[in-house]
Amino acid sequence: MSGTDFELHPRLAADTATVCDLGLSRVLLMDDITWPWLILVPRRTSLRELVDLPRPDRHRLDDEVALASHVLLSLYRPDKLNVAALGNVVEQLHVHVIARHVGDPAWPAPVWGRQPPRTHAPDLRAERVKALRSAFAALAEAPSR
Amino acid sequence: MSGTDFELHPRLAADTATVCDLGLSRVLLMDDITWPWLILVPRRTSLRELVDLPRPDRHRLDDEVALASHVLLSLYRPDKLNVAALGNVVEQLHVHVIARHVGDPAWPAPVWGRQPPRTHAPDLRAERVKALRSAFAALAEAPSR
Repeated sequence: MSGTDFELHPRLAADTATVCDLGLSRVLLMDDITWPWLILVPRRTSLRELVDLPRPDRHRLDDEVALASHVLLSLYRPDKLNVAALGNVVEQLHVHVIARHVGDPAWPAPVWGRQPPRTHAPDLRAERVKALRSAFAALAEAPSR
Repeated sequence: MSGTDFELHPRLAADTATVCDLGLSRVLLMDDITWPWLILVPRRTSLRELVDLPRPDRHRLDDEVALASHVLLSLYRPDKLNVAALGNVVEQLHVHVIARHVGDPAWPAPVWGRQPPRTHAPDLRAERVKALRSAFAALAEAPSR
């Protein structure tokens, strides 16, 4: 179960910036300024479905999704979080955690396939990744919720 | 934390048939024959986000979503499962677990908002609920995965 053979799917690599590695997952920032949008990818090989994870890892992923949720809540004050494991297009198991605001460009519909991504300018992307890293570090040290 | 005050959101009640109650969640069948589509609703009041659940209940919900996933895998042999907590429209916390097949009417897009629901004929709905109940009962007794 070591993560040494893990390789991020090229489509996920192309569409995101790396934020940090948690105990199980790599945290990615979707390169779309429209929504604050994280993707968590368990660093394991050959996973497609959530139920492909052994139970302790499912719970660990659940805790990491909760941490990512608290990070988005603290930085972006969304009206709603959207959490989803779809994977119809990219077959590597990944979980979307998206901050939604009433009146955002897709509200109240889901975000997928609504409009082409509006990528970050490099400086803005670097700044957001830095803020996210700080928030993950700060909240990961907070008492367990 | 007793579930006695729990009331299903009227929109969820109108759009679904009840399959069964698990330890934490009520399991509903979406009244749309296009996709085998379950919805799990934790029987707790005033929940909107997954992170509103205390950690042990989040893990319990995770186990119940896994059970629902195995039920859909065993009955419908889908190519992919879609698991999502969105809740932009119906504010009561609920998790979608949907069996997807390559070439289904929305594939590979998510199912929400693609087309109006095609409701079950009453006999078919009763038959499907019965098959789902049997599968939940059989798989809930299987050794923990």
